[in-house]
Amino acid sequence: MEFKLTTLGTASALPNPKRYSSAHVINIRGHLFLIDCGEGCQVQMCRHGISPVKIEGILISHIHGDHMFGIFGLISTMTLLGRTAPLTIVAPESFRPILNFYNEHFAEGMKFVISYLPLSNKEPATVLSYRSFYIESFPLVHKIETYGYIFREKVPASNIRKKKIEKHNLSLAEIAQLKKGCDVLREDGELLEAKNFTYTPYEPRSFAYCSDTMPFPELTEWIKGVDLLYHEATFGDDKEAKAIEFFHSTARQAAVDARKAKVGKLVLGHYSTRYPDLHVLLSQAREEFSETFLSDDGLTFDIPLKKHSKD
Amino acid sequence: MEFKLTTLGTASALPNPKRYSSAHVINIRGHLFLIDCGEGCQVQMCRHGISPVKIEGILISHIHGDHMFGIFGLISTMTLLGRTAPLTIVAPESFRPILNFYNEHFAEGMKFVISYLPLSNKEPATVLSYRSFYIESFPLVHKIETYGYIFREKVPASNIRKKKIEKHNLSLAEIAQLKKGCDVLREDGELLEAKNFTYTPYEPRSFAYCSDTMPFPELTEWIKGVDLLYHEATFGDDKEAKAIEFFHSTARQAAVDARKAKVGKLVLGHYSTRYPDLHVLLSQAREEFSETFLSDDGLTFDIPLKKHSKD
Repeated sequence: MEFKLTTLGTASALPNPKRYSSAHVINIRGHLFLIDCGEGCQVQMCRHGISPVKIEGILISHIHGDHMFGIFGLISTMTLLGRTAPLTIVAPESFRPILNFYNEHFAEGMKFVISYLPLSNKEPATVLSYRSFYIESFPLVHKIETYGYIFREKVPASNIRKKKIEKHNLSLAEIAQLKKGCDVLREDGELLEAKNFTYTPYEPRSFAYCSDTMPFPELTEWIKGVDLLYHEATFGDDKEAKAIEFFHSTARQAAVDARKAKVGKLVLGHYSTRYPDLHVLLSQAREEFSETFLSDDGLTFDIPLKKHSKD
Repeated sequence: MEFKLTTLGTASALPNPKRYSSAHVINIRGHLFLIDCGEGCQVQMCRHGISPVKIEGILISHIHGDHMFGIFGLISTMTLLGRTAPLTIVAPESFRPILNFYNEHFAEGMKFVISYLPLSNKEPATVLSYRSFYIESFPLVHKIETYGYIFREKVPASNIRKKKIEKHNLSLAEIAQLKKGCDVLREDGELLEAKNFTYTPYEPRSFAYCSDTMPFPELTEWIKGVDLLYHEATFGDDKEAKAIEFFHSTARQAAVDARKAKVGKLVLGHYSTRYPDLHVLLSQAREEFSETFLSDDGLTFDIPLKKHSKD
């Protein structure tokens, strides 16, 4: 059961011949979502074998060009490729006129429906829910209205401990009850406690996406304990004042939040062109949180399945 | 006096990890113009040392995404870089709502004026004129309203043949008259014919841009004798029917027009992804016109100055 982040672009606002603009693909249990869609994103998808027709949803953090100017070309390509599957777009309410503009001028030949989900939540809220996972959005603090996203696996249904079936000669009805979490009182007075007969097959995994934002107090609570955190790191310590001025974060600030939120792993991105050697950012971040990694265009970060014991 | 074409993108409509979308920079006597502006164009400019703030004008051939989806990011970058010089945009009338859209949603902080010149001409017409060159647009035949462009140096002012000054002891007044092209009748009855005393310092050069289009009868007349012709060559002979269906050209058709128009050199581009080996297109084109060349992302084609003799 895959759960992985592919970073397609790690540049910040200015064009960078070595990096694409912000774009990330999450593959969660075979469902593909694009988070942000900077210019050239469709070419990066092509380069990394991610088909535009397989993207189920596009989540836009905010309406700054380096996070969404690639959406026009991408939707056009979906059309050229004959996509028919509906496409979900989650974005701030301010995206509506942009979508209307596209539909008015470029939608000729489009054979799929775009289902647009505008955001205006002031606190974390579930925006999409699937059988085995769901997606939350939460507000960030940037120059304009901006949202982060969390992908969370749902708590899976309990499995019965197979060894117990034979040992206790469980009936199908008893197994069904126990799997639901209900204890079973047998006619002979034996109490079969569900917690002893079942186990959760795996620990639900989670990924949080934070770009662009300056640090703010609620964030660590909202992203608490996620397995993987992507956090922008536009600047280093030397430009902390600039980070504040432009509502961005330093690598260190991202790492401090990762530590406070007790996340599993932190991935940095959205680098300013002023840092040709990104290890400056990495070392500053690792002083705060050792499990910090630099993302790069095309890099993939897996969140391994955490299986529980059957015994 | 430079006059050169830099090809920034040679892909056609579908994303191509090896090629960028259509975008070309003309440097004519130090003035930079961008012709078409496909997605990622600003990154290619950055890569090839072409500053967005130095672009004087953007000429858009038509409102298909692969020819103009890069303009949003490029204008945003001009803004971020603090551009103040006015920017001229020449494009079909249908570009107006696109420009309005940009201005409404993304123009914050823009400190330069965009001067928009909408096209609707049915025949070649001069659209911009500078001291030493001018730009024509002419309609192409594509699925939607599409224009080609020709950059032409103006006929330069005549120079006096220096050897004649001494030989005929020309006065300043006589020189001025002759340079204007007027003959001079001296008091002693000697006729100084301007054509014998002056020369044009160089032959005006020209470059024509044809993308996207199917062949049509008037084209060869309109581009007659240009030194350099860029012509789309989406398909090879094998897909001539598809070229017609989509209002495109084959490489051979481009070359036939180049031969009929007696151009100096033909440069092909806008390749379909179905031709991994472009030499197929080149050899078909060269059967018609030997001075055909394949463009590639980042390639530059010079039009050398053709100086005339002073003697």
